[in-house]
Amino acid sequence: MENKNQLFSTETYSKRRSLLKKKIIGSGVLLFLGNQESSINFKDNWYPYRQDSTFLYYFGLNFPGLHALIDLDSGEEIIFGDDLTIDEIVWKGPQPSMTAMSAKVGILDTRPLEKMKAYLSQREVHYLPVYRPEHVVFLTSLLDRSYTEVDLEYSVSFIKVVAAQRAVKSPEELLSLNEAASITSQIHLSLMQQAKAGMKEYELASRVRQVAHEQNVNISFQPIVTIDGQILHNHYYGNTLSGGDLLLCDAGAESSHLYAGDMTRTFPVDPAFSTLQKELYDVVHRSHLAAIAALKPGIKFLDLHLLACRVLVEGLVEVGIMKGQPQDAVAAGAHTMFFQCGLGHMMGLDVHDMENFGEAYVGYDDQLKKSTAFGLKSLRLGKALTPGYVVTIEPGIYVIPELIKQHKEKGSYNDFINYPLLEKHADFGGIRIEDDFVITTDGAQLLGTPLASSSDDIESIRKAALS
Amino acid sequence: MENKNQLFSTETYSKRRSLLKKKIIGSGVLLFLGNQESSINFKDNWYPYRQDSTFLYYFGLNFPGLHALIDLDSGEEIIFGDDLTIDEIVWKGPQPSMTAMSAKVGILDTRPLEKMKAYLSQREVHYLPVYRPEHVVFLTSLLDRSYTEVDLEYSVSFIKVVAAQRAVKSPEELLSLNEAASITSQIHLSLMQQAKAGMKEYELASRVRQVAHEQNVNISFQPIVTIDGQILHNHYYGNTLSGGDLLLCDAGAESSHLYAGDMTRTFPVDPAFSTLQKELYDVVHRSHLAAIAALKPGIKFLDLHLLACRVLVEGLVEVGIMKGQPQDAVAAGAHTMFFQCGLGHMMGLDVHDMENFGEAYVGYDDQLKKSTAFGLKSLRLGKALTPGYVVTIEPGIYVIPELIKQHKEKGSYNDFINYPLLEKHADFGGIRIEDDFVITTDGAQLLGTPLASSSDDIESIRKAALS
Repeated sequence: MENKNQLFSTETYSKRRSLLKKKIIGSGVLLFLGNQESSINFKDNWYPYRQDSTFLYYFGLNFPGLHALIDLDSGEEIIFGDDLTIDEIVWKGPQPSMTAMSAKVGILDTRPLEKMKAYLSQREVHYLPVYRPEHVVFLTSLLDRSYTEVDLEYSVSFIKVVAAQRAVKSPEELLSLNEAASITSQIHLSLMQQAKAGMKEYELASRVRQVAHEQNVNISFQPIVTIDGQILHNHYYGNTLSGGDLLLCDAGAESSHLYAGDMTRTFPVDPAFSTLQKELYDVVHRSHLAAIAALKPGIKFLDLHLLACRVLVEGLVEVGIMKGQPQDAVAAGAHTMFFQCGLGHMMGLDVHDMENFGEAYVGYDDQLKKSTAFGLKSLRLGKALTPGYVVTIEPGIYVIPELIKQHKEKGSYNDFINYPLLEKHADFGGIRIEDDFVITTDGAQLLGTPLASSSDDIESIRKAALS
Repeated sequence: MENKNQLFSTETYSKRRSLLKKKIIGSGVLLFLGNQESSINFKDNWYPYRQDSTFLYYFGLNFPGLHALIDLDSGEEIIFGDDLTIDEIVWKGPQPSMTAMSAKVGILDTRPLEKMKAYLSQREVHYLPVYRPEHVVFLTSLLDRSYTEVDLEYSVSFIKVVAAQRAVKSPEELLSLNEAASITSQIHLSLMQQAKAGMKEYELASRVRQVAHEQNVNISFQPIVTIDGQILHNHYYGNTLSGGDLLLCDAGAESSHLYAGDMTRTFPVDPAFSTLQKELYDVVHRSHLAAIAALKPGIKFLDLHLLACRVLVEGLVEVGIMKGQPQDAVAAGAHTMFFQCGLGHMMGLDVHDMENFGEAYVGYDDQLKKSTAFGLKSLRLGKALTPGYVVTIEPGIYVIPELIKQHKEKGSYNDFINYPLLEKHADFGGIRIEDDFVITTDGAQLLGTPLASSSDDIESIRKAALS
């Protein structure tokens, strides 16, 4: 039960739970399910352990075998978990007791796991949406409900209070997010310095993990390291880098407190961009800078997204791949030919923070519902920003042959797309630039060590690396 | 649906299925559950994907979203899975069709996943023990059974036939196991060359992964890299290496066909072992060599284990930490003070091959049941060996303070343990030496590039590395 992460002060966890109890209206028991080990190819061959983020937020402990609850009626806060037997000590070594570990996060009441079901019997139990099958199985037995009931009967009021609390990051959380972003920045710099023609994508994907692991932290998601940047969720690493290719790397590290970093850089395998690469890169970079300049409390992230889209279209019109009025093109959705996804997302203990709660409660609210249109339906965050929110800004241009073909056949966007020119460059690939920001009282601040993002600065690094 | 591994020839998979059909007695449907993505901290943040090993063995395809069956009555062989929609192509890129991928493993009948439940309705369905909660949830719905039923109603006759078939490795499997062992050997050599005082364990654990990832293969299990080698299952990497420490590294790579390697080396952080370290290391090495020399078809692995134990005790008597007749000490179980686990295990597509089937069917048989005694109950393999079996040989000496204390208090093994001397060295740590072997027609052959294992050879590598 050695804890696998750094802990904040005992007080931090106690205060978070106190605030939660103050904000929750109602009675019954708030249930916090801890994650168990995840089996790879047989029961005892495990993936690296990662605790549930809400459990981490309120109870801090990053090891398996735990669940916790807050009793809204009695005020009790309990961690359920078992101490090691002598047999387990032989295999795992001596470990601090449950009592000692729980005390570090301000919990003085620990009980054996087997006592949990009886505690919850005849009580109103509130839980958050489950995203691991182990939790479905466990809750079905714990609460004597069917799968379908377990899947559907999560507590919306519980979600709303936790989502509001976790969304606004405290100073110590921001330090941790800054640490994650700095390691992430280091990962990207390392790739820009090491990539060269003839290398395999997986050699660079290995380097991503290595930079994190050598600092005893994990990666926050499986990296994208690809010369096919137009494939948005691409975890294939089998290609060889060649002169003329653009390499897109989307990767992030976790901090020692398990907060996420998430950045993307796109750079030429050659020492410099080609003419068209530089033109389109600069378009994405202008969109990136425009969105960052507009980041401030009160602004809707949806409006930032639309601003970034307009700047992308303005640039694409200059290059000649699009035509017509940018404002009209965005209104018609023509930009989704190149930018099929969203400008960014919330970030915290999860790289897509609290995504398991549902975007309706995290990225949107009662005032603003998510659009179902192609493009906007992939915008994870739309609502107005508040100081303490941490968000990514990640515009891009993705030239997807299948999408061009589909739209052309349907006759879509004929007023806005220069199909002959676009088809000539159908194999262009993809570009994305992504950084992480915290919303401040009057604007926003970059997280982590600043990293080159202009085409000139990228080329300087590449030229130095390849000389 | 890009396949994430190398495939054998189409014929290989067809032949494996034909043989299975020939050996199975009975009617109904054999069900092969494919693994799905495993969520880390929210649904769509995934661990690296790994297919189920039995699915891989008969159906080869290493991507999620698949299940397969063999109909014993009609002879049909079907893979159930869905092609990508255009929306999915935007996110994942174009992929070969289900039909094209399935044809590569000799399956000409592919059907949408939604057709599976109807196919199985009113049929006798045979499945293997489930080890992932996702399969419990899926089977409960597919077969309209409760969890408990799903957990208990696996087919023992299906297990026995698959276990017998997978246990004996074919020439192409042995090539792949050899590749895994060679990369594994490279990992260990790299650690012996790079370790030095002042480094953190996690820096070397990172190096384990790096050697594998740079060759586009994965690790076969989370590595043990520790100066506390006496802790048998230790995944803590936070210690700093110091002069005088022994570093134990137990790590393995997967081959490009997803077969496992698994080796252990223990070496001094200094250029040379201390006197006691060398004495005890040589005891383990003698036990290792004795077991290897006795490896041949027909011998019970249980007898090899007991031989290795006797050689360990002989050495410990020479050193003075044990006393009395070695044969008597082993009969009394006194060696379990130092060697609490088993001499080795089967290896194949799983590092503990087919462990999810249960040791009763993989490591033991109707003639030989597993002992429940401390020590022997951790021996995963006991039965007689057959040509084509792949096994590890991994004796060790582990000095566990809690165990010494417990046995001394109980007055155990007073005739065999020199408690005063042992207590003086209670902080000694642990030593293990592990290699991988295939049983041949008249003996056994080492898998992978041979790697130094004698104390002299280890010291040569360390001296060269540190000079």
